[in-house]
Amino acid sequence: MQTRILVNLLNMKKLRTLWHKTDSETGIQVIDQRQLPHQFITEDLHTVAEVFYAIREMVVRGAPLIGATAAYGVYFACLEAEKASNPDVYFAECIQKLRDSRPTAVNLFWAIDRQLRAIEAGGTWAEKAQLARQSADLIVEEDVEICRKIGEQGLPIIEKIYQDKKGERVNILTHCNAGMLGCIEWGTATSPIYQAHQKGIPVHVWVDETRPRNQGASLTAWELSQAGIPHTVIVDNAGGHLMQHGFVDMAIVGTDRTTRQGDVANKIGTYLKALAAKDNDVPFYVALPSTTIDWTIRDGLKEIPIEERTEAEVKFIPGWSVEHEKMLNVRLTPPDSPAANYGFDVTPARLVTALITERGICEANEEGMLSLFPEEKK
Amino acid sequence: MQTRILVNLLNMKKLRTLWHKTDSETGIQVIDQRQLPHQFITEDLHTVAEVFYAIREMVVRGAPLIGATAAYGVYFACLEAEKASNPDVYFAECIQKLRDSRPTAVNLFWAIDRQLRAIEAGGTWAEKAQLARQSADLIVEEDVEICRKIGEQGLPIIEKIYQDKKGERVNILTHCNAGMLGCIEWGTATSPIYQAHQKGIPVHVWVDETRPRNQGASLTAWELSQAGIPHTVIVDNAGGHLMQHGFVDMAIVGTDRTTRQGDVANKIGTYLKALAAKDNDVPFYVALPSTTIDWTIRDGLKEIPIEERTEAEVKFIPGWSVEHEKMLNVRLTPPDSPAANYGFDVTPARLVTALITERGICEANEEGMLSLFPEEKK
Repeated sequence: MQTRILVNLLNMKKLRTLWHKTDSETGIQVIDQRQLPHQFITEDLHTVAEVFYAIREMVVRGAPLIGATAAYGVYFACLEAEKASNPDVYFAECIQKLRDSRPTAVNLFWAIDRQLRAIEAGGTWAEKAQLARQSADLIVEEDVEICRKIGEQGLPIIEKIYQDKKGERVNILTHCNAGMLGCIEWGTATSPIYQAHQKGIPVHVWVDETRPRNQGASLTAWELSQAGIPHTVIVDNAGGHLMQHGFVDMAIVGTDRTTRQGDVANKIGTYLKALAAKDNDVPFYVALPSTTIDWTIRDGLKEIPIEERTEAEVKFIPGWSVEHEKMLNVRLTPPDSPAANYGFDVTPARLVTALITERGICEANEEGMLSLFPEEKK
Repeated sequence: MQTRILVNLLNMKKLRTLWHKTDSETGIQVIDQRQLPHQFITEDLHTVAEVFYAIREMVVRGAPLIGATAAYGVYFACLEAEKASNPDVYFAECIQKLRDSRPTAVNLFWAIDRQLRAIEAGGTWAEKAQLARQSADLIVEEDVEICRKIGEQGLPIIEKIYQDKKGERVNILTHCNAGMLGCIEWGTATSPIYQAHQKGIPVHVWVDETRPRNQGASLTAWELSQAGIPHTVIVDNAGGHLMQHGFVDMAIVGTDRTTRQGDVANKIGTYLKALAAKDNDVPFYVALPSTTIDWTIRDGLKEIPIEERTEAEVKFIPGWSVEHEKMLNVRLTPPDSPAANYGFDVTPARLVTALITERGICEANEEGMLSLFPEEKK
């Protein structure tokens, strides 16, 4: 099931995080993101069981990518149901299995439900499978398009800084991985950066390593490296110092959930960077697909529950042992010292310069958001 | 030269970072801090060469401890000079070697110079050695006393919070290791904490892991653990979230250099925590021996040069491999992604609630500092 790919990824025209193995085959391929940045290994997925494994074990991660992968899981479920002795029961079990793969992933449930509606029109399981595949392809292309548009909206911000700096390189700080690897292509926070790079604007990205899970040092650094975009990995402690000394022209991050008044829940540590940006007049942008806006809540600090994860993610860290030529987990703390592991923090809207969505850019407050999404007025 | 000590450190009455092997022997013993928190190994030092190695290879670290260790290096130099064919030349070579062990360590030069003055009164090399040993012992005891006094001055702050919280535990956040391990005993930022604990005040310490060199996760967590003080290791990203939710009653850190107007250069990331403290009305204290005040400079951001260290400290991390039962270095980043490594940042005085010195507590501004140190008025 695993394939080590030795091609120079820079030569691959369009690297995505999920693709059809071939047009005629049923299987899809994904990147095993647990191995990045140390090894580029793809996984073939052609069964519900394989999709379940890939989502549960975090072979794939990032809300849009999880949703898209699960969408193909529904397609495989239709194919497998066709051959089952009791197709309806078998299919229902498959759907439950997919729902259970990551219990808190909203996009996962959204994608599965959308697939269930899409296959209703199919009379036979073969027809349902056909519809599920088409619908999954559509979910993928829609995500690509939303991310492309976020980049299109954000690009002028980078262009303006480039003009103001009279052609000097634009230094952009980002936290965690709101990149292509969490989506299908482009990413969210990275999309304006990729588009600026493609337009020939010299950009340089400060990549927060993003402890404890190091998505910056492992994933963002890897994808920027593949795209040939100049970047420098820094510890999460460094951003304030860089901003104090004028080394950061703008910060841009993603978000897991945005409230009606523009508060932003994102990876732990985002708030600290937003504070430093404010203190040093560095513009701080949040890039988001509008699907991550929760119009039902206002006060992010009071209303967004913050996930606490296992202390092992703080006490141990995986990395590449040059000596042993493999990935190894090492312990960083005294064995008996407890650790706490909060997954996210909330950045109050007052620290956010603007939100960049697929529909446009707006101020991080209710008025600004409703100007882009008037249908959400009550 | 190495000894593995298996005693329960809690049963050692007074753990210090440096001690005489026995009263009658010349050698001293230090903890090999490179092995913490994974192994407690002591090193015997009885020659100039061994002292040079211990300082250069960071067996000992922390300005006061480096100074004290070098002081005994001068003592060993006197003993060795006595037996050398050309004592004066040999001694001068030893002193130069000690000076070269860590080129930027101010305390190192200070301690060596103080020792050179102390031995001037000695007629023979044996007499000089005797004077050097006494003077080194004095340097050690003075450091212990300064740290003890810092704790004594800071203790009422913790007592007050304890009273205000009506007996609930006091949650204190600290960054890096401004602990006993960098000094001889007590530490600076940790000294009020140790003294509060000894007085029976329930304290709990949030220990920032302090990337890239993880002095918090490895050293501060270890020494708090040995002292039986409740603590929790957190990633450097977490402090803002904790403060937003009222989980931090005060922050206290050390400093490498403090300016005349109260700006504080400390381990990278300190500034971000000070910003979060300000934003959430959490008092932010800096504990320091007055020797770290640089009365010749005012504006820390403009006047304190920030050391850039090797990118390897960001790209690789040492930890304990349970599988291989030893310490291993693992790589965290793509091999070709560059990394930047700034050692310190400057926290402007406006973010510091107060400075805690061995002479008392003062506001972080020139007036406040001169009220404690009137002899520095110009």
